[in-house]
Amino acid sequence: MKSPQLDKVTIPTLLLDVDRCRANIQEMSKKAARSNTFFRPHFKTHQSLAIGQWFKAAGVTAITVSSLQMAEYFAPEWDDITVAFPVNILEIDRINRLARKVKLNILVEHTESLCFLNEHLTAPVGYFVKIDVGYGRTGLPPQAHQRIEELLTFASSVNLNFKGFLAHAGHTYGCRSEADILAIHEQSRKTMVALKEKYQSRFRELVISLGDTPSCSVAEDFAEIDEIRPGNFVFYDLTQARIGSNTTDQIAVAMACPVVARHPERNELVVYGGGVHLSKDRMDGEPEGTIFGRIARSTEKGWGDLIAGMYLRSLSQEHGIIKGPSAEIEQYQVGDVVLVLPVHSCMAANAMKEYLTLEGQWIERL
Amino acid sequence: MKSPQLDKVTIPTLLLDVDRCRANIQEMSKKAARSNTFFRPHFKTHQSLAIGQWFKAAGVTAITVSSLQMAEYFAPEWDDITVAFPVNILEIDRINRLARKVKLNILVEHTESLCFLNEHLTAPVGYFVKIDVGYGRTGLPPQAHQRIEELLTFASSVNLNFKGFLAHAGHTYGCRSEADILAIHEQSRKTMVALKEKYQSRFRELVISLGDTPSCSVAEDFAEIDEIRPGNFVFYDLTQARIGSNTTDQIAVAMACPVVARHPERNELVVYGGGVHLSKDRMDGEPEGTIFGRIARSTEKGWGDLIAGMYLRSLSQEHGIIKGPSAEIEQYQVGDVVLVLPVHSCMAANAMKEYLTLEGQWIERL
Repeated sequence: MKSPQLDKVTIPTLLLDVDRCRANIQEMSKKAARSNTFFRPHFKTHQSLAIGQWFKAAGVTAITVSSLQMAEYFAPEWDDITVAFPVNILEIDRINRLARKVKLNILVEHTESLCFLNEHLTAPVGYFVKIDVGYGRTGLPPQAHQRIEELLTFASSVNLNFKGFLAHAGHTYGCRSEADILAIHEQSRKTMVALKEKYQSRFRELVISLGDTPSCSVAEDFAEIDEIRPGNFVFYDLTQARIGSNTTDQIAVAMACPVVARHPERNELVVYGGGVHLSKDRMDGEPEGTIFGRIARSTEKGWGDLIAGMYLRSLSQEHGIIKGPSAEIEQYQVGDVVLVLPVHSCMAANAMKEYLTLEGQWIERL
Repeated sequence: MKSPQLDKVTIPTLLLDVDRCRANIQEMSKKAARSNTFFRPHFKTHQSLAIGQWFKAAGVTAITVSSLQMAEYFAPEWDDITVAFPVNILEIDRINRLARKVKLNILVEHTESLCFLNEHLTAPVGYFVKIDVGYGRTGLPPQAHQRIEELLTFASSVNLNFKGFLAHAGHTYGCRSEADILAIHEQSRKTMVALKEKYQSRFRELVISLGDTPSCSVAEDFAEIDEIRPGNFVFYDLTQARIGSNTTDQIAVAMACPVVARHPERNELVVYGGGVHLSKDRMDGEPEGTIFGRIARSTEKGWGDLIAGMYLRSLSQEHGIIKGPSAEIEQYQVGDVVLVLPVHSCMAANAMKEYLTLEGQWIERL
């Protein structure tokens, strides 16, 4: 059985299960509401105005992106945008253009960046001080009080407006159990709440913002957290499933890849679908070793369960090599389409120009 | 010291050293000439009509690509194109459109594909039988005489014309010495020459085609090989340098990445430049562990030597984390630009929309 929409697939195509995607949006949106925290979803995963409309339908009014280019793309339909990436002062002209159009927030962690902005901004911008809650990628350690103080000297200058503290607990991606995720989340939450308590008397409107998908998917306690910014949950993927953020039947995208060669003697298929489509993101330490995707069973409606033991074992620029049990491999002919659930949906979606819904509609993205 | 062209860099930008690139083209082109083998370079690495012109200037008249989309892009300027990818029968309409415009060659390894083509082609196409010389990705084993014979039953049907045998010795990418590369090359060459000898009496014009960059860079003996198809050599990269295909001063592209944060306490810089720019291709087993790029010293002309011990240790979607000796890290300020030599130039170039030459010219690509 296969979905009639697969007849539209001639090259690697990212299929989107709209029902799953909208259910993921609904679920996260409801969790934010019952946790009394503001939901500012990260749009770097889907990068699509059309999918953005489904967030609007769920009551979302403000978004997060990871580049000024994405902010420009979303600006015609969204007027409150946080660029959750350390401010790149070389893009000052772009920042100024955007800040004239929308309520723009940026992240700052260096006084030198802030001084530069203070001198060159021509429109008001909100800024968050980026805090490193343990991931070790960007941000100030929460105990770096003097450096934090320095970043507050411009807290309410003409075009700079201090908004609060923002963190990304990306170290949850190393977790393999709910308990591990919750431990990191609780630690991050406490760290951020302590900062809030310290600075709230001086900055009444101070916002603390957290936002990795594992924590937001698993945790229920967001007490005192003003804002969450998860992104990947809109599609989820195999990496998130392994962490424990989602079940595989919540994964809302699958790469449809034409079979171009069969090697039953080594239980392999060659598909058109490579690193330029799925990205080279991988999962090490799986039962099969390193994998680049898993294969779902094609159904009339789209796709169903994962096929046990069937996975993408390697990727070249345009080729993918799929391995699986011989009984499964033998069912595929040249010209059939294999459905690959991605290791990392953000990167796979970024590599593609559009989505094909299971209803046969093409959805554009940045 | 820095190149004045770096002033044009505000976001991750792929710099192209035209002199190095043209020297790489010249060198490979001369080697093909002195080896008396036809040079059909693979254009999947640069994917640029403008760079294609430099190949024309070096006497190149026919090209290789890895998708029909690339063939369409190059078709206005190139009339002899081999798509070195197992034919995807779902793209039959595209094949027919292209075959009406240019001399199109495709790869076949299954009778079912060939039968389909025989029935659906509306314009003449040349086909190569793909041979697996040991890489184990695609192709028929050279000893599969019966399957090869089956693929020759359509050798001169109305729209199908058997051209010869084609192989890609991709297992040279696992080599770490010239001797290892030469051993694989000699084995591949002998395998292909044996096929030529077997079938040449029936097919007078039979072509045998080989083409990985390591073999083509290192080997000198192409006796009886009719055609070579290397691609990566146009830019080279760190992976090829480790294999022994090139020296690092032949690498013709560098990703210019703005510094957005500094963490001297852990000898790290955060740059704007992530997996969406460089791809997630990596090199394991380096002295530093796994790396995603190395840093070259900025010079007035472009870039010079690698900075010892300075490398890209990890990549997120938009972030790159650079590690290096403290004396080097301390020289960078927020707003400076770091020059990253890529692990895999094909994938990095594919992720970018254009090149910036060291003379300040923007060069477009597919």
